[in-house]
Amino acid sequence: MTLRHIALFRWQDGVDDAQIAEVERLLGALPAAVPELRSYSFGRDAGVSEGAFDFAVVADVDDEAGFVAYRDHPDHQAALAVIRPLLADRAAIQYPLPG
Amino acid sequence: MTLRHIALFRWQDGVDDAQIAEVERLLGALPAAVPELRSYSFGRDAGVSEGAFDFAVVADVDDEAGFVAYRDHPDHQAALAVIRPLLADRAAIQYPLPG
Repeated sequence: MTLRHIALFRWQDGVDDAQIAEVERLLGALPAAVPELRSYSFGRDAGVSEGAFDFAVVADVDDEAGFVAYRDHPDHQAALAVIRPLLADRAAIQYPLPG
Repeated sequence: MTLRHIALFRWQDGVDDAQIAEVERLLGALPAAVPELRSYSFGRDAGVSEGAFDFAVVADVDDEAGFVAYRDHPDHQAALAVIRPLLADRAAIQYPLPG
């Protein structure tokens, strides 16, 4: 089984490129720090669709225990402490990947 | 380049298992019908986190043209015609996958 965690962010008005770059720097360090991460990607909206969220994070882990290890990892919590004050909206899900 | 499309759905109150199973049947036919889909998955929320959305769809395509081919494919449009009336909320993004 693989459990896929998805989080979509919508930034508050005024969040600038340097703040998003800092978020990317913090998230980019997580795969090396969190061994439970089997696959990890994040990125900015490509501007293809109107009304899209601004930023996506996708983390694939083995199971719920892997998700909790990622969620509660101090480096992830440190990233969230930077992200949370920037958020206007957030959408998330965890769903099992087939196969 | 890979462009990843993510759509998260929150169902209206009263949407039942048979209706979601019909959505899954329609979406499950898309990889065979839409050659632009490089990778495709969807699934119901695993119930791990409070406040999560109910259903996720993740489609990986080569580029914006691939996304548009998927978005506008008649079988996808037919699935959306079933999905839209069930929705209380939707969140989406398209972001470039590294590598």
